[in-house]
Amino acid sequence: MSAQGFDPELFLQLGQEVLAQQAFSRLLGAELTHLVPGEAELQLPLRDELRQQHGFVHGGVISYLADNALTYAGGTAMRVPVVTSEFKINYLRPAQGERLIARAKAIGVGRTQCVCRCEVYAVVGHEETLCALAQGTVTKMGEAPPG
Amino acid sequence: MSAQGFDPELFLQLGQEVLAQQAFSRLLGAELTHLVPGEAELQLPLRDELRQQHGFVHGGVISYLADNALTYAGGTAMRVPVVTSEFKINYLRPAQGERLIARAKAIGVGRTQCVCRCEVYAVVGHEETLCALAQGTVTKMGEAPPG
Amino acid sequence: MSAQGFDPELFLQLGQEVLAQQAFSRLLGAELTHLVPGEAELQLPLRDELRQQHGFVHGGVISYLADNALTYAGGTAMRVPVVTSEFKINYLRPAQGERLIARAKAIGVGRTQCVCRCEVYAVVGHEETLCALAQGTVTKMGEAPPG
Amino acid sequence: MSAQGFDPELFLQLGQEVLAQQAFSRLLGAELTHLVPGEAELQLPLRDELRQQHGFVHGGVISYLADNALTYAGGTAMRVPVVTSEFKINYLRPAQGERLIARAKAIGVGRTQCVCRCEVYAVVGHEETLCALAQGTVTKMGEAPPG
Repeated sequence: MSAQGFDPELFLQLGQEVLAQQAFSRLLGAELTHLVPGEAELQLPLRDELRQQHGFVHGGVISYLADNALTYAGGTAMRVPVVTSEFKINYLRPAQGERLIARAKAIGVGRTQCVCRCEVYAVVGHEETLCALAQGTVTKMGEAPPG
Repeated sequence: MSAQGFDPELFLQLGQEVLAQQAFSRLLGAELTHLVPGEAELQLPLRDELRQQHGFVHGGVISYLADNALTYAGGTAMRVPVVTSEFKINYLRPAQGERLIARAKAIGVGRTQCVCRCEVYAVVGHEETLCALAQGTVTKMGEAPPG
Repeated sequence: MSAQGFDPELFLQLGQEVLAQQAFSRLLGAELTHLVPGEAELQLPLRDELRQQHGFVHGGVISYLADNALTYAGGTAMRVPVVTSEFKINYLRPAQGERLIARAKAIGVGRTQCVCRCEVYAVVGHEETLCALAQGTVTKMGEAPPG
Repeated sequence: MSAQGFDPELFLQLGQEVLAQQAFSRLLGAELTHLVPGEAELQLPLRDELRQQHGFVHGGVISYLADNALTYAGGTAMRVPVVTSEFKINYLRPAQGERLIARAKAIGVGRTQCVCRCEVYAVVGHEETLCALAQGTVTKMGEAPPG
């Protein structure tokens, strides 16, 4: 962030640097395409390696993307290092297409926790089809993990 | 299953063949190590590609393994092709170690749906540490996905 | 519904008759204040009997209202008798005030299942404060319950 | 607790006093029948006022009992005042009978949070039928609620 205030490009770039440090996100090929405080969009180009035995995107790929988008939305809303401590996902339909887009938003922002929601779309050309809904809690690091 | 009845080795082997058809499970390296009707155990040897920026296993890896174990437990309990239609996961602590083990069990078995639970452990040597709890619904294929 | 098509007043009235048949909803005092296919609003005037030991609305009251609103949204979206087969709720803050309002919406509508979301607000005068978020599955009766 | 150590009867009695302070629990008629650190059992005698339009126990009654049992299990595990900050419930089958029993257990106990699980049974005579499964997070008061 510049001395003049919030710099959207720099903010997104810092988020992308964090994503680049996640080996698993690199393995899957996720891209952070939008990031403002409390809102994040992740995209994932689809390829055969991300599918299950029926040719659809594996549920684990969709839940990974939702989980990560929730973390970005919550972390930028609270402006502290965070982890997703829990979430729930409903798969609406089998996902296929060229890419997935996950859009997450912080809804209830607190000091140590933030409740966020996420929608995951499968994209073919310009058409987006909603394929999953998630809701979860993002928690300040050091607060969440028991033990 | 043989004419003589339930053949545990063949049952596990058939489950492993399904896993081998999931490109995403091959990419991650998951292994099906136990399978009887209503119960499944999946293992995942850990490597750097499965981590996030703090060196712990990425949450998406843990949720993938839980999701897949739920599907196996529910599918073998109902004996029909299934999908996981929804689940919820609580991460208890950061996961690290040599491998993950997910153990899932069918609890409420119906005709078209089955509610299952799963525990995910991180393993170092012979020591297992519980790192996540999941609960979800496995649904007969063709019943679940709206639209 | 009249021969001329959808009659919003009659639709709401039919919904209110269903609510009046729920003894538990009468005990709590819930009111159905809005109902169109796929969308429902329930209100609950608050009184001392609905509180816990710290003076706030009991979590069970909030989850009741969310559960019921999800069922109305899903049932009117699918136009069949339904039950809520599962849901998840995050409490954002302690709820107090004059009444609760739960607003639910069907998001993913299928033939036998519908995924819905709900927001619960605590109301003082004209001010609404978001106090809980829910997401769940509403299932056609006869499809959901195992056994 | 006596000077000699843990006094199970006193522990249960203190828990019952807390329940007696919850107006909503009195309205429903819940009874705390077992309480040790990290484990709780609540019972609820069924009566017509707790039903929905098909004669079964209202889902909101079941979720209330699960929510409250989770809170007791988590609170006694952490030994601090707590609230349930989120939970998920799967209804397995319509509940009917003479009473409900909810049994909850703390699984992942931390300093500020505790992940718990709960099973709800419907009871006729000596026969218990599992009718719901819940899982959720219990959080130290003052830590959970955003805002």
